Amino acid sequence: MNDIFSKCATSEGYFGQFRAQGDRYYTMPVMESVPGKIMKFQGRDCLMWSINNYLGLAENEEVKQAALEAMKVWGTSGPMGSRMMSGNTVEHIKLEESLADFAQKESSILFNYGYLGVIGTVASLVGPDDVIVMDKLVHASIVDAAFGAVSDRRHVRVFRHNDMDSLESRLKSLRETVKGGILILTEGVYGMTGDVARLRDICEIKDRYGARLFVDDAHGVGVMGPTGRGTAEHFGVQDKVDLYFGTFAKAFASIGGFTAANRDAVEWIRYNARTQVFAKSLPMIYVKALQKTLDLVRDGDARRKQMFYIADKLASGLSELGYYIGKVDSPLVPVFIPEGNQVTAMEWISFLRDKGIFVTGVTYPVIPKNYIMFRMVPTASHTDEDVEKTVAAFRSLRDERGLTLHYDIDAISNIYGDPEV
Amino acid sequence: MNDIFSKCATSEGYFGQFRAQGDRYYTMPVMESVPGKIMKFQGRDCLMWSINNYLGLAENEEVKQAALEAMKVWGTSGPMGSRMMSGNTVEHIKLEESLADFAQKESSILFNYGYLGVIGTVASLVGPDDVIVMDKLVHASIVDAAFGAVSDRRHVRVFRHNDMDSLESRLKSLRETVKGGILILTEGVYGMTGDVARLRDICEIKDRYGARLFVDDAHGVGVMGPTGRGTAEHFGVQDKVDLYFGTFAKAFASIGGFTAANRDAVEWIRYNARTQVFAKSLPMIYVKALQKTLDLVRDGDARRKQMFYIADKLASGLSELGYYIGKVDSPLVPVFIPEGNQVTAMEWISFLRDKGIFVTGVTYPVIPKNYIMFRMVPTASHTDEDVEKTVAAFRSLRDERGLTLHYDIDAISNIYGDPEV
Repeated sequence: MNDIFSKCATSEGYFGQFRAQGDRYYTMPVMESVPGKIMKFQGRDCLMWSINNYLGLAENEEVKQAALEAMKVWGTSGPMGSRMMSGNTVEHIKLEESLADFAQKESSILFNYGYLGVIGTVASLVGPDDVIVMDKLVHASIVDAAFGAVSDRRHVRVFRHNDMDSLESRLKSLRETVKGGILILTEGVYGMTGDVARLRDICEIKDRYGARLFVDDAHGVGVMGPTGRGTAEHFGVQDKVDLYFGTFAKAFASIGGFTAANRDAVEWIRYNARTQVFAKSLPMIYVKALQKTLDLVRDGDARRKQMFYIADKLASGLSELGYYIGKVDSPLVPVFIPEGNQVTAMEWISFLRDKGIFVTGVTYPVIPKNYIMFRMVPTASHTDEDVEKTVAAFRSLRDERGLTLHYDIDAISNIYGDPEV
Repeated sequence: MNDIFSKCATSEGYFGQFRAQGDRYYTMPVMESVPGKIMKFQGRDCLMWSINNYLGLAENEEVKQAALEAMKVWGTSGPMGSRMMSGNTVEHIKLEESLADFAQKESSILFNYGYLGVIGTVASLVGPDDVIVMDKLVHASIVDAAFGAVSDRRHVRVFRHNDMDSLESRLKSLRETVKGGILILTEGVYGMTGDVARLRDICEIKDRYGARLFVDDAHGVGVMGPTGRGTAEHFGVQDKVDLYFGTFAKAFASIGGFTAANRDAVEWIRYNARTQVFAKSLPMIYVKALQKTLDLVRDGDARRKQMFYIADKLASGLSELGYYIGKVDSPLVPVFIPEGNQVTAMEWISFLRDKGIFVTGVTYPVIPKNYIMFRMVPTASHTDEDVEKTVAAFRSLRDERGLTLHYDIDAISNIYGDPEV
C-alpha cells in the first residue's frame, strides 16, 4: 500500500517542473489590474493578448451599473439554495427565455460555471447503454464530462480532430452494436488551436446516423456568425445542433453558462443535471448583469467587426514578418514559433513580456513537437496602435534573437484538418 | 440503436412525475424576495426554514458594502481567465492564506463552487492504482467526484453510514490488495440527515491503516466547533483531517469553496485540479466579500450561540407536540412525520406553506420508508417569536389533520448509527 500524498512532493503531474520550482511567472502569474487590453504585471503595463475578452465587455460600464443596482438589493448571497429547493426566481427564468431566444431554441437552462454546465448536461442525458463520440481536441471539461457520464470507459470513443471520415467510421461501427443512443461532443471554436468545428458536415453525418450533437461553443458564442449567435449560425446549422452550450466566461466577460435545446430536453436536464440540482443557483447579481450583457452581445455588430479587423491586421502583420499563422475562421490568431533557435519556449514568453506584450504559449501535444504557439486573442478593445506595437515587438524578437523562421507547413496545418468545403 | 432524447418525454428520472406535470410548487418554487428568515412565496410571507443561512450572514450589510466597493473597481468580469493563465491576484492569495489560518492548515486553495472543489480535489489526488472508501450518505458532488476520479468503478468502496465497523472492514480487506493509496471521503455534518460524522473514530482508524481523509464540511464550517472552525474542531481532530473542504454556499452565504491541507498537497491540487486549472478564477467581488465574511465568521460566537438556541427551542417545542426529532449534534432539526395518515408527504408541505411556514421534505431512501422528514435549518436570524409561530403551525398540522404520531424509533434512529463514544 501507498500514500496518496506521496506524489505531491515530486515534480510529477501537470506543469510539475514549474510547481516543484514554486514558479509564479509562467504559471499562475499574479496580475495587478482589472481585466482589459492593458494589464499590469510585475509593475509593468502590458498589452494583453491572452484574455478571452472578445467583445471588450470586461470593461463595460453599463454592465457594471446593472450589477451594482442588483447588488444593492440582493447582495452577494442571493438566491440561497439550489433552483430545485429555494433558489429559483423570475429573473432566472427570464434570462433563460432570453438566452433561448438568442440561441433560436425552445428553451434553455442556466449553469453556474461552464465546467458544471458541460458535466451536468452530458451526464444527465447519457444512460448506461448510451455511447459518447467526441473530437480528440475537446476541452478538459468535456473529457471529464464524457468519462464521468458513461457506465463503462469503453463507451467513450474519440475521433481525429475535425476529421469527418474518422467521425463517420466511429458511427458506422457503433450503429451495429450500440444498445442505447449516441451523443457526439464537439466544441464550436477550438479554444487552443482557434479552428472551427466543421459543423455543417457534422450535422449532416449525425442526422444520417440518428445521433445527437452537443456543441460547447465557449469561444464562439457572441463571437461567430452574422449576428453573434455562434459557430452554428456561422455555418447556418443552428437548428441542427441538438444541444447548444455557451459559456459566459469569454465574450460575455462573466461567469456561468447555458444549454439551449428543445423544451423536453431542457426540462430533463433541469431535473437531472446533478451539478445544478445539487448546487446553489447562479447569483442574482450575475443574472441581472448578464441580461444587460446579452443586450450588448445582440447589439454587438460593431464590436465584432472591430475584433475581426484587429485579428486580420495582427495576423497579416505577423505573417509579413515571416511568422506562420494558423489559418482559422475564428478571431483567434495562432502564432507559431519554431524551436531549435537556442532559445526555449519559455524564454520567448519572457522576452515578449519584457517588451510589454503578454501572451500565453501552447505546446506539444496540442501542436506538433518543435514549435511553441502563442494563442493570441484579439478583442474589440484593441486598436491599430496596439497591433503596431505588438508587431514591432515580434520584429525585435525575430531580429534581436536571430530567429530562423523555417516551418514544416504540412506538420502544422495537419492539426487543422481540411477546411470545410 | 436508440435516441438519447427519447427519455426526455417520459416521466422517468429524478422527480420525474413532477417534471412531467410541469410542477413549480414542490420542485423549483419561484421565490419572490431576497434570502432571509422571511421570504415571499406566491405572494405570501413565509418563515423560511430551508435555506442554509446558519449565521444569518445572507442579509449582512458589511459584506454587501465590501462587495459594492469591490464591484465599483472590478465589475462582474474580473479576473478573466484561470488562475493558471491570467486570473491570479494578490487578493486571491491573501484570502487563501486567511482560510488556511482559519482551518489551521499550512495552505489552502479556492474553488469557484463547492461542486467544482470536491470534484477537483478528489480527482487531482486519486491515481489509477488508488482506491476511494466513502460513506453511503455523502453528497451528490462527492459521489460524482469519486466515480469520476477512479480508473475503474470497482475502486470506489462504500461503507455503511457512520458505521466504524463497516469502515474498518473495508480498509482491512483493501490493505492486502490495493497497489496505490486509500482516500476516505466523508462529510462533516451530513446535510440531509443532520448528523455528524464520527471524525474522532474515523481519524483514529485511518491513521492506523495509513489512509488519507477528505472531509466535506459544507454544513459544518463556520457552524460547528468552539470557534466555528467546523466539525473537526468540534471533535478536536482538526490536525488529523488531511484534506479539509469548506463551501461558502451555506454559513458564508456566498459562492465558492476551499480545500485546506499541507503545503505540498495544496500545491499539487493547485496544478492538477482540472475543474479549477481549466476554469475562470473566482470573481474578485466574491473574493473581497469573503474576506469580510470570514472576519464575521471568526467573530461569530454570538451568532452561533443564537443559532443553537433557536435549534434547541425549535426541537423541544416540536418534540413536546409529539413529533420525533432526530438526535443530532448539528443545529439542523430533522422533524419526522409518519405517513399513513391519509395525507401524502407533499400535502404536509403545502399545509405548512399555507400557514406561512416554508420547509423542505426529505424522503426514502435517505430516511426509512413511511416517513417524510422536514430538514429545518435554524439560523441566527430567527427569533423566539418565529419558533413559537412555527410550533403553533405544527400543532395545527397535528390537530386539524388528525395526525397520529406513532414512530418506529428503532428504524429511524438506525439511520444515525451509534453516537460517538
